Amino acid sequence: MKQPHIHPQSLCETAHVGAGTRVWAFAHVLPGARIGADCNICDGVFVENDVVVGDRVTVKCGVQLWDGVTIEDDVFIGPNATFTNDPFPRSRVRPAGFARTVVRAGASIGANSTILPGVEIGGGAMVGAGAVVTRPVPPNAIVVGNPARVTGYAAVPGSGPPRPASAASPAGSGAPLPGRTELGVGGASLHELRLFRDPRGELSVGELGRELPFTPRRFFLVSGVPGHEVRGEHAHRSCEQFLVCARGSCRVLLDDGHDRREVTLDRPSLGVHMPAMIWGTQYRYSPDAVLLVFASGHYDPDDYVSAYEEFRKLAAGRAVGA
Amino acid sequence: MKQPHIHPQSLCETAHVGAGTRVWAFAHVLPGARIGADCNICDGVFVENDVVVGDRVTVKCGVQLWDGVTIEDDVFIGPNATFTNDPFPRSRVRPAGFARTVVRAGASIGANSTILPGVEIGGGAMVGAGAVVTRPVPPNAIVVGNPARVTGYAAVPGSGPPRPASAASPAGSGAPLPGRTELGVGGASLHELRLFRDPRGELSVGELGRELPFTPRRFFLVSGVPGHEVRGEHAHRSCEQFLVCARGSCRVLLDDGHDRREVTLDRPSLGVHMPAMIWGTQYRYSPDAVLLVFASGHYDPDDYVSAYEEFRKLAAGRAVGA
Amino acid sequence: MKQPHIHPQSLCETAHVGAGTRVWAFAHVLPGARIGADCNICDGVFVENDVVVGDRVTVKCGVQLWDGVTIEDDVFIGPNATFTNDPFPRSRVRPAGFARTVVRAGASIGANSTILPGVEIGGGAMVGAGAVVTRPVPPNAIVVGNPARVTGYAAVPGSGPPRPASAASPAGSGAPLPGRTELGVGGASLHELRLFRDPRGELSVGELGRELPFTPRRFFLVSGVPGHEVRGEHAHRSCEQFLVCARGSCRVLLDDGHDRREVTLDRPSLGVHMPAMIWGTQYRYSPDAVLLVFASGHYDPDDYVSAYEEFRKLAAGRAVGA
Amino acid sequence: MKQPHIHPQSLCETAHVGAGTRVWAFAHVLPGARIGADCNICDGVFVENDVVVGDRVTVKCGVQLWDGVTIEDDVFIGPNATFTNDPFPRSRVRPAGFARTVVRAGASIGANSTILPGVEIGGGAMVGAGAVVTRPVPPNAIVVGNPARVTGYAAVPGSGPPRPASAASPAGSGAPLPGRTELGVGGASLHELRLFRDPRGELSVGELGRELPFTPRRFFLVSGVPGHEVRGEHAHRSCEQFLVCARGSCRVLLDDGHDRREVTLDRPSLGVHMPAMIWGTQYRYSPDAVLLVFASGHYDPDDYVSAYEEFRKLAAGRAVGA
Amino acid sequence: MKQPHIHPQSLCETAHVGAGTRVWAFAHVLPGARIGADCNICDGVFVENDVVVGDRVTVKCGVQLWDGVTIEDDVFIGPNATFTNDPFPRSRVRPAGFARTVVRAGASIGANSTILPGVEIGGGAMVGAGAVVTRPVPPNAIVVGNPARVTGYAAVPGSGPPRPASAASPAGSGAPLPGRTELGVGGASLHELRLFRDPRGELSVGELGRELPFTPRRFFLVSGVPGHEVRGEHAHRSCEQFLVCARGSCRVLLDDGHDRREVTLDRPSLGVHMPAMIWGTQYRYSPDAVLLVFASGHYDPDDYVSAYEEFRKLAAGRAVGA
Amino acid sequence: MKQPHIHPQSLCETAHVGAGTRVWAFAHVLPGARIGADCNICDGVFVENDVVVGDRVTVKCGVQLWDGVTIEDDVFIGPNATFTNDPFPRSRVRPAGFARTVVRAGASIGANSTILPGVEIGGGAMVGAGAVVTRPVPPNAIVVGNPARVTGYAAVPGSGPPRPASAASPAGSGAPLPGRTELGVGGASLHELRLFRDPRGELSVGELGRELPFTPRRFFLVSGVPGHEVRGEHAHRSCEQFLVCARGSCRVLLDDGHDRREVTLDRPSLGVHMPAMIWGTQYRYSPDAVLLVFASGHYDPDDYVSAYEEFRKLAAGRAVGA
Repeated sequence: MKQPHIHPQSLCETAHVGAGTRVWAFAHVLPGARIGADCNICDGVFVENDVVVGDRVTVKCGVQLWDGVTIEDDVFIGPNATFTNDPFPRSRVRPAGFARTVVRAGASIGANSTILPGVEIGGGAMVGAGAVVTRPVPPNAIVVGNPARVTGYAAVPGSGPPRPASAASPAGSGAPLPGRTELGVGGASLHELRLFRDPRGELSVGELGRELPFTPRRFFLVSGVPGHEVRGEHAHRSCEQFLVCARGSCRVLLDDGHDRREVTLDRPSLGVHMPAMIWGTQYRYSPDAVLLVFASGHYDPDDYVSAYEEFRKLAAGRAVGA
Repeated sequence: MKQPHIHPQSLCETAHVGAGTRVWAFAHVLPGARIGADCNICDGVFVENDVVVGDRVTVKCGVQLWDGVTIEDDVFIGPNATFTNDPFPRSRVRPAGFARTVVRAGASIGANSTILPGVEIGGGAMVGAGAVVTRPVPPNAIVVGNPARVTGYAAVPGSGPPRPASAASPAGSGAPLPGRTELGVGGASLHELRLFRDPRGELSVGELGRELPFTPRRFFLVSGVPGHEVRGEHAHRSCEQFLVCARGSCRVLLDDGHDRREVTLDRPSLGVHMPAMIWGTQYRYSPDAVLLVFASGHYDPDDYVSAYEEFRKLAAGRAVGA
Repeated sequence: MKQPHIHPQSLCETAHVGAGTRVWAFAHVLPGARIGADCNICDGVFVENDVVVGDRVTVKCGVQLWDGVTIEDDVFIGPNATFTNDPFPRSRVRPAGFARTVVRAGASIGANSTILPGVEIGGGAMVGAGAVVTRPVPPNAIVVGNPARVTGYAAVPGSGPPRPASAASPAGSGAPLPGRTELGVGGASLHELRLFRDPRGELSVGELGRELPFTPRRFFLVSGVPGHEVRGEHAHRSCEQFLVCARGSCRVLLDDGHDRREVTLDRPSLGVHMPAMIWGTQYRYSPDAVLLVFASGHYDPDDYVSAYEEFRKLAAGRAVGA
Repeated sequence: MKQPHIHPQSLCETAHVGAGTRVWAFAHVLPGARIGADCNICDGVFVENDVVVGDRVTVKCGVQLWDGVTIEDDVFIGPNATFTNDPFPRSRVRPAGFARTVVRAGASIGANSTILPGVEIGGGAMVGAGAVVTRPVPPNAIVVGNPARVTGYAAVPGSGPPRPASAASPAGSGAPLPGRTELGVGGASLHELRLFRDPRGELSVGELGRELPFTPRRFFLVSGVPGHEVRGEHAHRSCEQFLVCARGSCRVLLDDGHDRREVTLDRPSLGVHMPAMIWGTQYRYSPDAVLLVFASGHYDPDDYVSAYEEFRKLAAGRAVGA
Repeated sequence: MKQPHIHPQSLCETAHVGAGTRVWAFAHVLPGARIGADCNICDGVFVENDVVVGDRVTVKCGVQLWDGVTIEDDVFIGPNATFTNDPFPRSRVRPAGFARTVVRAGASIGANSTILPGVEIGGGAMVGAGAVVTRPVPPNAIVVGNPARVTGYAAVPGSGPPRPASAASPAGSGAPLPGRTELGVGGASLHELRLFRDPRGELSVGELGRELPFTPRRFFLVSGVPGHEVRGEHAHRSCEQFLVCARGSCRVLLDDGHDRREVTLDRPSLGVHMPAMIWGTQYRYSPDAVLLVFASGHYDPDDYVSAYEEFRKLAAGRAVGA
Repeated sequence: MKQPHIHPQSLCETAHVGAGTRVWAFAHVLPGARIGADCNICDGVFVENDVVVGDRVTVKCGVQLWDGVTIEDDVFIGPNATFTNDPFPRSRVRPAGFARTVVRAGASIGANSTILPGVEIGGGAMVGAGAVVTRPVPPNAIVVGNPARVTGYAAVPGSGPPRPASAASPAGSGAPLPGRTELGVGGASLHELRLFRDPRGELSVGELGRELPFTPRRFFLVSGVPGHEVRGEHAHRSCEQFLVCARGSCRVLLDDGHDRREVTLDRPSLGVHMPAMIWGTQYRYSPDAVLLVFASGHYDPDDYVSAYEEFRKLAAGRAVGA
């Protein structure tokens, strides 16, 4: 079994360091810390006691991991990235308990970024260099700036462009829908609605159940969303949705647990069909955006999957079962 | 039988003047004109040959009725109101035919207004004093300005305010809809949708078939409507509609052939239900308005009634039959 | 005594026509009308019964004066100018009473303008050619457009530019105020306040009772005034006022019953002092205008003079008494 | 020779009425007026003394021609169109002299329009019904509204669409210019400049003397033009011009005295070449429009032709000489 | 007496370390530095010579204190917070003297923030994590962002919500003021002015000395304040003030040396009365904000207290004396 | 010869450290690094293997120089400034090659700034404290913020204000140009064009070859430039340019290799003449800016000098040769 490599000019006071992990010079790890295998703890890193670090984690120079920080497997933490654990620090005033900060598996924390106390960085997320993270970062999201905002989502390696429409058709109709393009993510598709323009304005129209894939039982209208907000972030077990941006624009991320694809809804004649078991996220709303959503079922709280990790597991199970 | 009264200092060259009609001093009526009964043709009015005037029409001083003008019963024409019959007049260039201008029954043409050639003024409409009318005026509409724009609709005498919701409920449900107010026009009703607001934006929602009175088979989105445009102006024989202004605002006029009522849709949580056989008109769109319409049936051109006079007759027939 | 001149091809059915008045061809005056002396009633004019016309009035061709219209002395009515007396005319529907329209002495009604029923045109006012007058016109105001808006005030013949500040000083101080310019109207004056500008913004300041002429006992802030509105239009018997446009701009008309002057307040460092017995009018508010007014006295309804004619008389009396 | 036709119920007091002219009932022409041949003076028209009317003029009912009005040949004057001759009329105050109003040959004055004193209506111009004309109307211009604004120019009958580029090339180069389209008016042409766009902005470029037809000796930049203003309105005897709208848009009317064509410059990569002896007019500037003009010669006041009538004659002479 | 704790793997070259202070591993303190008692100097901190650190100061990992930095008592300095002492550093170019940076007692410097040279961080202030501080931070202010802006003020522990108005009344009147709410800070109060709204705009009014607590001797208008600016920041020994935001909005912080309260002035009918000896601060001006201030006395420079520390002492003295 | 000073508590594993260089405590330099003479490598600095550092470089505490970083002579690197070498770092995923980051001679990297991988910091540039540098920084530019934007250019020590116009005149004309001001940089000059303003707009005009120094053979129009973009950044060997901001504003930096000067073009009547061999840069474009550029020659790619270092050498050679 591989032994950890502890540099002689470091101070490693814990016994819990996994095999293959390297601790470099001038690093200081306090006795209560637990560090996994095959990690890289670089020069000058400081690790407090109430800290857990997973496997295959890289912590670059100038980073401190304070009490209350948990780093899952395969995380990268760039140089001088700065964690915190007290939202209103005052000298010699110790808070009752430290806010817990969790960096989920596979995330990347950019160089010299700042992570405010108590936020969770989602799995696979990427915090840009110099970002100041003041709120939770969704799974796979890319955030930059001060304060940090979502600017996109990390790509799934190897995912290609949207494929042309298959011969798929709405249930029972036997004929393909016009203006439909498969997105290659969990059966989702883009739909070009018919559009009529004249000097009196413009009108887009959809025949429900004919041109669109289901007859809605619920609709909702979303508006007034600040540009930096992210909405959605859940999946449905059985309910289907159809989204149209009636004014302005927003981006829609579709994730079936395996592939991800992003579309921009920017005109009232473009809709996206999200079948059940798609993790949907909408963001980058323009200031005037109005999102119209049709749902195939009435409201049912049990139909929601709100935790991404749970969704991933459910999706994996379905894929196996299929 | 009453005789017409022809002032000795007028020039009345036609034989077709109805009983009880008065023609005043310095008025001049050419031989081909036909004027109904109980009219009032004031001082200095000039009437050409190819002109038909109905019964009980008032034509005030300083008005000329040119070849091609038809005035139906009960019309009022204010002083110095000016008709035309050639869109691009050049001296001594006689057009192949004159544009026909029709003023429908009961309309009122404001003092010193100008009516461009070939427009139709709808029944009961009111043209404001000094208005310059460059396009057709819908039935009962009030238009003012240069160019004239619709600013409202003439009230039906005696129509009261909206009544509170009756115990009516969607077909088969047996329970009244929450947030519903009867409008007292052909079964139409206003609906307050549920609205959720938080820092991430606002969301209004409707359960179709439960909170709203039907399950839609078609939807359309109307946007980019210039503020002076009027849309709708038709009725459906059997299709129901539900309208929500998803952004901005517009006014909706509902007319069942007997009563008229107007509502302003100005928030995404307010909808109006228009049963079949309502003549619907939308106007005063704000620049950012997006109107969302649900229809209970797929598109069927035979379901449309596009002429107001026909609608009035159909509505009257139904009322009798009911 | 001069006799009226009645053209043989007119129809003048009234006996009440003043000396020196001319009634031209094709004009028609009904029996009940009363017309003053030295008037000019041009070709084709029509005058109903319930009409009073003062002395030295000109009525050009194509004008009708309907029941309910009163024209005071020295009024000019341009060709084809059109009066009305029923706000919602319908044929053969006679209103209970006609709205009364009054044109005050010395006013001028532009060619082809339209006057809606019941409005009063103030003394000395000037209605622009083609204007459509939908609301009362203040004394001496100039209005144009459809609908007509106040664009200025008619000048008093012979009034010169503002004179430089006299040696006048605030009561008891014995020293002239800095930055003061006499306006030559009832003791009113313009005041340049001290202004300080730096990157943190700008600040204008006035020492009350030192730099400004009185210590205020009341202040008010006026905002949200539509650009076409006219405010003020009253005088105070004893209260003084000091006006500053804290943001945006507006025009202030000062009238002491003899002279008129107009100033534009367009910066927070410019104020105007209105002593008692100035008829003050503010108009052409910019959309963002905020007018700050100091008053030397607490609110007292008896201190207001709200009718211009009364003000004129009071001012004349004071001038005589002084 | 044809005699004029004078209706027995008119009052025609002048001896100067041309052959073939008709004067209708209740019209009144004062002794000093001069009226040409083949005119039509309709019912109720009033003509003062200091008035000249050309040949083939139509004056519809309800019109008055006051002292100071001149109507050239072939003019049409619609019903109730209203002329004026005193900018600030007061009753019984006769101005020193009347402003002179001239309507040039072939113009058309819309029904119920109002013409302020002293304006000139250019030849072939068309004043819309109900317009209130407060400033001179350029030749051939179409004006509407209150106040009236130029909205376009009357078409030359029979002028077709722009022809594709001929093999024409700049002087001496022997090769055709790329991106050039002949406009069919006096050698004028449209030029598409090369355009480069990238995230840093866009750049349009023209090689002078190569891609464009001459080397400039002068340039000017025009901006801040109110949307209702008309600029240009002159021709050059020998100077050529090249116009590009560097921002915003404007319309350019080109007139070689025989044909007219209008182009809209709406992007920095579109230019129009105007050879010498083109009457050029620019109008409908967008609020942000910046017009860049290159001229082939230095400034020379003798090179300008500023009167349209003179230009027409010069152009006709050249055409004959060519 | 407690001894300092110096980690054997640190380099502590100064003799001036207070009792109870801990210096941790890899920290390096140069010989000239002076460090107080009960401090915590964490791993890897570097302290130059010309540095003074007070008592009970925490300096987290990755911080350097350069020549010219003074840290008062009870300051917290978060990890990787970065100080500077040369505004335009160039390698090997030593400035004549270093800008002095002072962090006042009780302030908190956020993790990974950057403090530009020469700024003073006020007592009790809180610099947000990741902030880049380019200008002085007022006492108790909270600043965030790059560049850092004031977003609020730290609360005084235990201060409750505004209390309802007491029976207090203006001097001599004997009656309470209507619309008044005590703020619980040095006698300050909020005042709802009477507001009148109609289609002609809105008017708010205050009777001075009746509804408001004093008769003003000075007024000033503040406008054009950039949103990130802070104004005020002084107290008066005897002058009272009354503030109204005549347009837009701003926040007003009132501090009597013991309690602090913040109000938002956001309408022309809301004023705040600041008695003497209130430290007043205005910030978060909206772009269109116009602040109107009345002062009870004429301008007197000796009435100003411009240093917060002096104000605190004066206020404490008064409280004792009272 | 001076020896390097290596602190005993540092880890300096390379043999390539220049004379006079100091390496301080807890610094760690890997074996492959090459460090020049007279450098200052402060406490806790970490230097990887594939790193080259020039002479007289200062690297303050908390900095790491990663594989791929090159630091030229005389560079200053502030405390906690953070470099990176992988644009999308993932733990344990080593990119094929590291992006190379180069800091050119004389640049200054601000405290706690973040430098993204692969950017080049130009010679003499100044990166503000806390800046996040995401794109290359031009020579001598000053950048601040997150993300960093150019806000100005570092001054050349000792350069004075623009001198008044000399007697210089355009080639061959013998007479000075009106409205010209020499800028003192490579013969460049400012030109006030003649400007004409009236209610119809404003017009600025230049006679080419008379008022302006050359006859153009090319023009281009630049628009739609984002405010943070920098354009130009090249010199011409023989082509002259004349720049006018036809709308909006931008800043123009002129650099002849020895002196630099900046002018703001903010009106259509202000132009700047750039002779050949001026390194020109335009930045801070307002959103509506349209830059009009005349060039004295047709396009010739061989006339461009696009690398600043090459320009500096060429300029120096010319200066010597002159």
